[in-house]
Amino acid sequence: MSDLTAGMAADHRPVAIIMGSQSDWETMRHAAEVLEALGVCHDCRIVSAHRTPDRMVAFAKGAREAGTKVIIAGAGGAAHLPGMVASLTSLPVFGVPVESKALSGLDSLYSIVQMPAGIPVGTLAIGKAGATNAALLAAAVLALTDEALAARLDAWRAARTAAVTERPE
Amino acid sequence: MSDLTAGMAADHRPVAIIMGSQSDWETMRHAAEVLEALGVCHDCRIVSAHRTPDRMVAFAKGAREAGTKVIIAGAGGAAHLPGMVASLTSLPVFGVPVESKALSGLDSLYSIVQMPAGIPVGTLAIGKAGATNAALLAAAVLALTDEALAARLDAWRAARTAAVTERPE
Amino acid sequence: MSDLTAGMAADHRPVAIIMGSQSDWETMRHAAEVLEALGVCHDCRIVSAHRTPDRMVAFAKGAREAGTKVIIAGAGGAAHLPGMVASLTSLPVFGVPVESKALSGLDSLYSIVQMPAGIPVGTLAIGKAGATNAALLAAAVLALTDEALAARLDAWRAARTAAVTERPE
Amino acid sequence: MSDLTAGMAADHRPVAIIMGSQSDWETMRHAAEVLEALGVCHDCRIVSAHRTPDRMVAFAKGAREAGTKVIIAGAGGAAHLPGMVASLTSLPVFGVPVESKALSGLDSLYSIVQMPAGIPVGTLAIGKAGATNAALLAAAVLALTDEALAARLDAWRAARTAAVTERPE
Amino acid sequence: MSDLTAGMAADHRPVAIIMGSQSDWETMRHAAEVLEALGVCHDCRIVSAHRTPDRMVAFAKGAREAGTKVIIAGAGGAAHLPGMVASLTSLPVFGVPVESKALSGLDSLYSIVQMPAGIPVGTLAIGKAGATNAALLAAAVLALTDEALAARLDAWRAARTAAVTERPE
Amino acid sequence: MSDLTAGMAADHRPVAIIMGSQSDWETMRHAAEVLEALGVCHDCRIVSAHRTPDRMVAFAKGAREAGTKVIIAGAGGAAHLPGMVASLTSLPVFGVPVESKALSGLDSLYSIVQMPAGIPVGTLAIGKAGATNAALLAAAVLALTDEALAARLDAWRAARTAAVTERPE
Amino acid sequence: MSDLTAGMAADHRPVAIIMGSQSDWETMRHAAEVLEALGVCHDCRIVSAHRTPDRMVAFAKGAREAGTKVIIAGAGGAAHLPGMVASLTSLPVFGVPVESKALSGLDSLYSIVQMPAGIPVGTLAIGKAGATNAALLAAAVLALTDEALAARLDAWRAARTAAVTERPE
Amino acid sequence: MSDLTAGMAADHRPVAIIMGSQSDWETMRHAAEVLEALGVCHDCRIVSAHRTPDRMVAFAKGAREAGTKVIIAGAGGAAHLPGMVASLTSLPVFGVPVESKALSGLDSLYSIVQMPAGIPVGTLAIGKAGATNAALLAAAVLALTDEALAARLDAWRAARTAAVTERPE
Repeated sequence: MSDLTAGMAADHRPVAIIMGSQSDWETMRHAAEVLEALGVCHDCRIVSAHRTPDRMVAFAKGAREAGTKVIIAGAGGAAHLPGMVASLTSLPVFGVPVESKALSGLDSLYSIVQMPAGIPVGTLAIGKAGATNAALLAAAVLALTDEALAARLDAWRAARTAAVTERPE
Repeated sequence: MSDLTAGMAADHRPVAIIMGSQSDWETMRHAAEVLEALGVCHDCRIVSAHRTPDRMVAFAKGAREAGTKVIIAGAGGAAHLPGMVASLTSLPVFGVPVESKALSGLDSLYSIVQMPAGIPVGTLAIGKAGATNAALLAAAVLALTDEALAARLDAWRAARTAAVTERPE
Repeated sequence: MSDLTAGMAADHRPVAIIMGSQSDWETMRHAAEVLEALGVCHDCRIVSAHRTPDRMVAFAKGAREAGTKVIIAGAGGAAHLPGMVASLTSLPVFGVPVESKALSGLDSLYSIVQMPAGIPVGTLAIGKAGATNAALLAAAVLALTDEALAARLDAWRAARTAAVTERPE
Repeated sequence: MSDLTAGMAADHRPVAIIMGSQSDWETMRHAAEVLEALGVCHDCRIVSAHRTPDRMVAFAKGAREAGTKVIIAGAGGAAHLPGMVASLTSLPVFGVPVESKALSGLDSLYSIVQMPAGIPVGTLAIGKAGATNAALLAAAVLALTDEALAARLDAWRAARTAAVTERPE
Repeated sequence: MSDLTAGMAADHRPVAIIMGSQSDWETMRHAAEVLEALGVCHDCRIVSAHRTPDRMVAFAKGAREAGTKVIIAGAGGAAHLPGMVASLTSLPVFGVPVESKALSGLDSLYSIVQMPAGIPVGTLAIGKAGATNAALLAAAVLALTDEALAARLDAWRAARTAAVTERPE
Repeated sequence: MSDLTAGMAADHRPVAIIMGSQSDWETMRHAAEVLEALGVCHDCRIVSAHRTPDRMVAFAKGAREAGTKVIIAGAGGAAHLPGMVASLTSLPVFGVPVESKALSGLDSLYSIVQMPAGIPVGTLAIGKAGATNAALLAAAVLALTDEALAARLDAWRAARTAAVTERPE
Repeated sequence: MSDLTAGMAADHRPVAIIMGSQSDWETMRHAAEVLEALGVCHDCRIVSAHRTPDRMVAFAKGAREAGTKVIIAGAGGAAHLPGMVASLTSLPVFGVPVESKALSGLDSLYSIVQMPAGIPVGTLAIGKAGATNAALLAAAVLALTDEALAARLDAWRAARTAAVTERPE
Repeated sequence: MSDLTAGMAADHRPVAIIMGSQSDWETMRHAAEVLEALGVCHDCRIVSAHRTPDRMVAFAKGAREAGTKVIIAGAGGAAHLPGMVASLTSLPVFGVPVESKALSGLDSLYSIVQMPAGIPVGTLAIGKAGATNAALLAAAVLALTDEALAARLDAWRAARTAAVTERPE
């Protein structure tokens, strides 16, 4: 996490990136990196549904008040964090299934994506690709009312398109 | 649910059966029936992790105080109820994966059983067999300090053994 | 689809619901119903990635211009529609895996959620629950800048919370 | 295994940890370590359902008499040990699916958790997390009638909660 | 089960068909029918690993003495019967995974086929095809030293080959 | 890629090998190597369905005109390239599921093989074997009207048959 | 099967549709119907890899001589027919995984698609969609040297594109 | 492979171990080692269903004549060898699913075990344990009419039972 974003007041940070444990940071930092590249202020926190349920409730209930617009939540195994946060706020929540040891993140994926009707979690791919895409999706949401961000997002995408070479090497 | 058990004071009911929705009752009533057969007082409630998170927190934090000894929690799909309750109380929690429509309860199973180190949920089989066995396991726990119940449990098991015919018909 | 929403000009409809075939409507109409309940104008179209690729390209490239803010895309089997649309627009795209015959929607889920880094699709649950939640997620996005909608969304959620009975029947 | 617990008489050891082979110890020692941390006396044995069925029958039938209150059983592959022990005693049995080579413990999980109605095994997660949690669940059961243990268990959990940092590093 | 085979002395019956419950008979009767068609005497019994473990031990330990040559064992879910019987006798054991409700017999298959090195169970397909083939495999084993049976088995196979029409209708 | 084939005019190359990213070349080069061994001219390109959708549409729509007879397309994860190309041309398309990180190529396989009725993709095995076989299948198609190639293909197959030793070493 | 195609000499039939049993015809007739719609002569036969292995060898070895250009092979469960035929001829072979009872065709799919390097089978989707697409793929191959067929195939595809309505009903 | 068994005439070797490729030997040699330990003569051959189908047909049709009593067949991926050999002989065939790269042997398992009614393959576990057990099962079959072998088999099993230590180290 850069000092720059860490130093900002929370209410200037439209995106909150939360994760169930320190070990998820290896995956979730890719979300943070994309947001930094796009100039989207964000906050990164460890919020464990299972070890710190009170912190989770407080975070989720206070998120809108704190100025958060979009929540990105990553977790692995019986991954309850994204869904539980979504049950406690009506802000958009995007979930990242972190790859687990025995079941390769299939348990994480099912635990996040198979939410019952009523409480949505927009779920991304397992692992690093999912973390990257959660940030892009959050940016796409914010860009609906931020033309400068929309332009930066389009430029980011265009640069990646341009980077695709014609032939394999 | 029988009127008898519904009319009892909660603190005389060592087992709480909770489930995520009314539709889980079709599965979870098998837990209630076994407890009734074994003479174990219990309480059945709908506590949705996603639609009623505050009720869930209140239930779980108050369970020990209310005299609950063992909690049986059933849920389907992204089944967060057993694990979240287990994160909010140190009482023993037994989880029942309710069969889901598309994934036949595999999502329920993974969401319940793959808890991270620190917060245990003793998980039973998918569906009716799991609900039945959650009740038997709760009874086995209570029977550790209740000889009469231990005898009733052994009798229940012996009756089932005796009911196995020698040959198929 | 109600006549009311069908009669509106496309540029007053912030949400586009698209699906790969007529048979997906049985699932996707639940998205439409939730948006109607929340008073969110929307447009429903059949856009097949495989049978009408040109229509898909035209739709996706023109969506922002047409006033669309959020796209909900449902498809089954080798479900390419959500991801392909997401590759053609930087608007937020939410994907609904429609339950398939042989593999129960697992093929749909993998085809939608496992997008490579760079092109995000926020994926919901397989089937009806996913369609319902795609609508709620779209509404949550729009509600970030529409306080009246935010209030209606919170009321919708509160009503569902209130509808959870205390005990199973 | 510490000398301390190995030197105690079996009837002072309320928890028996059994496993199908020496190779399971790498997983199951995490159960032993948690019990030691919580001050719960326990006994660790190798009891193979397949290679030593007579030892298994003798162990299971004699467990209650030997003073055992809770049995933790770990096994991998076609993991029959937890379920067979549960069929031979009405003590609570908690099962730990050990990660297998080809199927990553999915075979272990299904073999343990999918018990038929009548014989319960409270199943924990695949691998180390499951072994840790089996010990915590056993402690939770014993703590129902041991206030000092209940306090130690709560302290153990509180310490883990306190160890969750606010931000990833 | 025909009266004819039921009336024979056990020691004239080289094949024992056992199953975990009455409900497995719907599947396992196909094994009995093939053996009858091939003129192989057999005995059908219900032997539940979980509900009648003592009966199982007695059966398996006494099988060779009783004249049994081959054991066919069918079970569903956490299907421990074939493997446990194989651990208690060195006679050849063939296992039939009975189709289960939630997991379609995948749990049965894994529980039977994934035996550890040392205790073999020759596993057949899930369901009716597996029961049929267990009988054919038992017959193939007995036919190694019974030329008349070998001829009947070859005739049975030839008749099925001849029954394959040239064109679909 | 050899300079030889790279230097040829596209319309002399009956096979086009396309892949979603540079990282797929490690797998797809096995297709190129087999085609070179069989003397089948081919063209290798990176065409990303998601990052370069316009390039993909242009490629697919222009393939027949460019003299392409058969298209081999490899992709991983939510692998949309083979199916989308098949929707844009009626040339035969053969798909290669590239092994993915978390799901081992199962997501790739489902995304490629489960195409809806109307748009076929002939799918090969996951990974290197699939790439090799896609080339062989393309050669088999071209050999229908190229006797010299048919002879080379048969010789290639015969050499592999001859290389199978009698006994393991 | 229409009398028309049944009455034609085999060497005028470029496509052979084979299947493992009569019960596969319910699926494979969709391949025949598409070929008829496209005016592609074909032959339908039952060729069981397991019950009629000699017929299979004779068919596969004689296919090229008989004028066959493309082979479509459908089978279910341990589906060996497509791969075995491909090992016995260098003609293009397209495989259709027929939906199986317990495993929904996943066993069929794996048995057909996961061929080792050296022997390709172009595999289509499980069930009816796969049978339809196998026919379309065979037609695409034949159309490479049959302009009239190419035109009919394009017309068939165009008609399906035109049949996609704009909006769901 | 020891010189001893390689030097024996085939008709003194009751067990044939066949495998699809040299790479399977790493797994299948465990079958050979167990047979050597039990003093069961055997023959090891590479017989590829796909690359050497004629060799396979000749082997299977000639096996009984050559004095073979039991066939052990190992293969990976789309593993057709065990089932195809079983279709060509009525000798007992035991199949070993060799672990595959992408799908960890699940494709091998399904391809071997899910045989249709009529052609049985007794299937063992994936990988080394399965190869070991195939040898033990073959020995158990031969021991039915070889008391000395039966005694050696029982001794082998007893030695393994005795080797199970009481406690983990």
